[in-house]
Amino acid sequence: MGVSLYNAVFIDILIGMAQIGKNSVGIVKTQTIRVVDKEVPLKLDCGKRLALVDVAYETYGSLNEAGDNAVLICHALSGGAHVAGYNSESDSKPGWWDEQIGPGKHIDTNKYFVICSNFLGSCYGTTGPCSINPETGKPYGLDFPIITIADMVRVQKLFLDKIGIKQLLAVIGGSMGGMQVLQWAIEYPDFVKAALPIATTSHLGAQSIAFDAVGRNAITADPNFAEGQYTGDNGPDRGLSIARMIGHITYLSEQGMREKFGRELRNANDYSYDFDSEFSVETYLDHQGQSFVERFDANSYLYITKAMDYFDLSKNYGSTKQALADVKSRFLVLSFASDWLFTPAEAEEIVDALIANKKDVSYCNVASPYGHDAFLLEPEIVGTLISGFLEATHRPAANKGAKAASKKWNHIEQGRRSRVDYELIESLVEPDSRVLDVGCGDGELLAALTEGKNIKGEGIEFDQELIIASVKRGLPIIQRDIERGLSNYADKSFDTVILSQTLQTLKNPKKVFQEMLRVGRKVVVSFPNFANWRCRSQLFFAGKAPVTRGLPFTWHNSPNIHFLSLKDFDEFCEKIGVRIEKKIALHRNRPSPIKFAPNLFAEQVIYVTSKE
Amino acid sequence: MGVSLYNAVFIDILIGMAQIGKNSVGIVKTQTIRVVDKEVPLKLDCGKRLALVDVAYETYGSLNEAGDNAVLICHALSGGAHVAGYNSESDSKPGWWDEQIGPGKHIDTNKYFVICSNFLGSCYGTTGPCSINPETGKPYGLDFPIITIADMVRVQKLFLDKIGIKQLLAVIGGSMGGMQVLQWAIEYPDFVKAALPIATTSHLGAQSIAFDAVGRNAITADPNFAEGQYTGDNGPDRGLSIARMIGHITYLSEQGMREKFGRELRNANDYSYDFDSEFSVETYLDHQGQSFVERFDANSYLYITKAMDYFDLSKNYGSTKQALADVKSRFLVLSFASDWLFTPAEAEEIVDALIANKKDVSYCNVASPYGHDAFLLEPEIVGTLISGFLEATHRPAANKGAKAASKKWNHIEQGRRSRVDYELIESLVEPDSRVLDVGCGDGELLAALTEGKNIKGEGIEFDQELIIASVKRGLPIIQRDIERGLSNYADKSFDTVILSQTLQTLKNPKKVFQEMLRVGRKVVVSFPNFANWRCRSQLFFAGKAPVTRGLPFTWHNSPNIHFLSLKDFDEFCEKIGVRIEKKIALHRNRPSPIKFAPNLFAEQVIYVTSKE
Repeated sequence: MGVSLYNAVFIDILIGMAQIGKNSVGIVKTQTIRVVDKEVPLKLDCGKRLALVDVAYETYGSLNEAGDNAVLICHALSGGAHVAGYNSESDSKPGWWDEQIGPGKHIDTNKYFVICSNFLGSCYGTTGPCSINPETGKPYGLDFPIITIADMVRVQKLFLDKIGIKQLLAVIGGSMGGMQVLQWAIEYPDFVKAALPIATTSHLGAQSIAFDAVGRNAITADPNFAEGQYTGDNGPDRGLSIARMIGHITYLSEQGMREKFGRELRNANDYSYDFDSEFSVETYLDHQGQSFVERFDANSYLYITKAMDYFDLSKNYGSTKQALADVKSRFLVLSFASDWLFTPAEAEEIVDALIANKKDVSYCNVASPYGHDAFLLEPEIVGTLISGFLEATHRPAANKGAKAASKKWNHIEQGRRSRVDYELIESLVEPDSRVLDVGCGDGELLAALTEGKNIKGEGIEFDQELIIASVKRGLPIIQRDIERGLSNYADKSFDTVILSQTLQTLKNPKKVFQEMLRVGRKVVVSFPNFANWRCRSQLFFAGKAPVTRGLPFTWHNSPNIHFLSLKDFDEFCEKIGVRIEKKIALHRNRPSPIKFAPNLFAEQVIYVTSKE
Repeated sequence: MGVSLYNAVFIDILIGMAQIGKNSVGIVKTQTIRVVDKEVPLKLDCGKRLALVDVAYETYGSLNEAGDNAVLICHALSGGAHVAGYNSESDSKPGWWDEQIGPGKHIDTNKYFVICSNFLGSCYGTTGPCSINPETGKPYGLDFPIITIADMVRVQKLFLDKIGIKQLLAVIGGSMGGMQVLQWAIEYPDFVKAALPIATTSHLGAQSIAFDAVGRNAITADPNFAEGQYTGDNGPDRGLSIARMIGHITYLSEQGMREKFGRELRNANDYSYDFDSEFSVETYLDHQGQSFVERFDANSYLYITKAMDYFDLSKNYGSTKQALADVKSRFLVLSFASDWLFTPAEAEEIVDALIANKKDVSYCNVASPYGHDAFLLEPEIVGTLISGFLEATHRPAANKGAKAASKKWNHIEQGRRSRVDYELIESLVEPDSRVLDVGCGDGELLAALTEGKNIKGEGIEFDQELIIASVKRGLPIIQRDIERGLSNYADKSFDTVILSQTLQTLKNPKKVFQEMLRVGRKVVVSFPNFANWRCRSQLFFAGKAPVTRGLPFTWHNSPNIHFLSLKDFDEFCEKIGVRIEKKIALHRNRPSPIKFAPNLFAEQVIYVTSKE
């Protein structure tokens, strides 16, 4: 395969080196390779050209025979190619995402060939503003051309071509790395099987541009900046440090900072009544600023933040939807609930554009207090989602049976699991059709329909653990509160939309039902029958709110907030002009339909409805 | 009264001066008065002393005979004493809160004597770091002592004493002005009748300290800062400008910035591919930074932000609750939903501390997209709340009848308005007792109880317009979702807690009911009876979810999400160990109780319950 040539040097773990765990990739060396030279200079988005481009990179694991197990990691603003393992025996810290990458880890180097390259414009080995300008023999400084995320990805593609990679199983990246992931899927649709943009956006909003601009202002205001021609030992350190401090505030959340620092004072119990840094959060920022100055280049900071500011799929492709119209990858989009730099709403915009294009997309908004940094600080949930998604993409057949094993099922879900309507609903779905399961749980029904009827299924669910299970099964599943509606789905995008035992728990059942009728040709809906003879008798004779085996909750703890009978639903459908194609009245545990007096004897009911 | 001496010079509006509207206070002159001199130097929190303190101020309107109409406005970080009107005929802009203050405006200078003084440490006339140090004959610079919010308020009190003010009808302030309001109410409880802290906090959180610290870093990193000994024409302009830019981002909201600027480019349709400011948000910040440099002093910025960082009622008084234990003012606390600098949660902490101390407090979290700046950018709702609260404080008797005139009553409220249980509930409340009305609407019942039974009433409501009406009536009302519980109220704080026609609309009625039993000696709860014969018959004979005059909604659009009968509630009370002291079964529109078969004939019911 020739790949071993480019493989990172892997040295067996030495006895006694305690910091290198047994599932570490061990000691790796960053390699450098020239991907652009004078014969074919690189044309950039700004119109200028770069005559020489070198790329620094690391790899872990091996490319398999089929060449279908390569995973590219895209790093964020201040990262580099060193994503896992140690660069030397004396290294005190491993690569920046070592928690995820290694033998047996979530991104398993026993299975996958993992590659990370430093992006264009950075200061960690790939050509950037501190590289030597071949025309002058001196560092570029501000003579380096303005670059874009697309330019960075162009260089990554040249690099992968050079090391003989023919396709990527997945591209994964958080923050600015996520922008590269999007760009990859858009520009090289046939090359990328799965795209995992995490904590990212399709475009920088005004607030993020503002923070970037203030950071650049701080750097260029530093007299040591010297128009970018500073020397190594006399750079714009204070300016760069301030820029980094601003950045760090945006990476955390208000809640996270409150928990981590509060109003704690560094040394004393009382205020010092001077302008020294005295709150812990101040000394933390001082430290972050100072350590950044020691490891990063101010010009690179300018170029990279500018590349981020310029990132805007709408501007480059007409709209986010148009940008993603021709992607062929499966997508797993992740955001974090407390991330206010690249918000969940921005992630949902990407998800909605993919849905509008009928792409295979899963989405989870991970509950975390850690803000933007949750991408690195929630390794377990992020890793579990990534590994499930990678597995399902790489070996789809083996992963269909995944269940939410550890899940404590709540009332509603318990009701659903024991319900008999599953197999009946299955019988109502056409083979080879498109199906949306609203409130799909761990994807059991969708998986069965995929298996038995070869449908193309999608799910909507709110519970994080159930989403993980569906992702593992390889099902496209979107985390969403269905009360918000289905506006991101186009009219009649599905042959069948399913809402099983959930209608009566919705705040606004009419709105949700009408939305389902809009997006599906057929809507299958099941619910408990409130006019079952047991309910009638209890209210009539006992004068109490019914508690039956079909409606097993007392008045005050019921998840059911609307009560309806077959007759109510019949009248409702007539009133809003909905055609009832089929109505199956059922006992609780018997699959044989009730023919006689269904509104009196049915405990539950399944309707097949449609609207033109 | 002698007050006219200190009154601002008021010149009649000249014909043709279009910019001065007829409800402007017109042209005013900022006055200066010495409040501290060498004989009695001012001792500061830091332990140092100031030998001379001058205060710059403006006043509008006149102090009345009783001397009970003085309103003090406290300004924020970059504000000054010039809060309304124009300082000269050529002034292009009026004072910073001119929208609110003037004859006929919300803070009506025909009724109130409005005072605003520049605070200690500022650069607008009151002594601060750019004042001359009497010991050296040169500006203080960094020799100025560190000051606190308490020091600022101390100086304001000396100033008010000096101009002959014996009490304040109200102290009003937003942001850092709100901190001064809190400090006023705490330190001078007998002096302040009403306190209106707006968009503020009881202590700066880690994130706000962090932003302040970075801003100060930017100033002190500027080589022109010269340890604070810069000269007027060669100050740390770039540093101060960066600090201001950071501040400005925190004053807006992500949504607000998105709407105001988006990704709009200043000049071109395409990127300029250089480092010039090209996004509108960048040029906006440049402008804000530049104009701030022209009007503000860098040393003042350091001292004022430090005073904010030090503000922490917990540290100074043991806890926020202890800090507010002895206040005597009525409080109106306002926050803004999109304010992420001083968040609604921080305002609620103040509110909760006041509630825990059984103080007279109203709270509204104003729905606004404008972030922290909403304090200035939502003049109508803010002004309406302020004027209502001022009126109710100043002339309580005249304002009890206020109603939410423009309010479109929703289903539930309509139900409540027409209910007969109001007068029955009234008959169940003891005279001179403490009453909490949960879901109090526009305060009609509480007002009637106050009038007729001399109760001390408080309300909880969620709707903003209903809150305005209650505030106008002079009732303490808290905006809160009652599903969140009543944890801020101490055990048995009330003689009676009322929940009228709301139990059946709650997600978690058990939790709310138990919380009510905890905080009240008696709980009066009313709800529609689901076992009324009309309901029973409809379900039994027609097999449909009941729609009756007592429960007038169809299954899918009902606000009622739990259904219960008298029997259900009896059993529920027995199960959770609640004593039923009284049970009144009622028809819909007749106040005479039903004696025979109440669970069959009652359409609604009122329970009086208690728990030891």
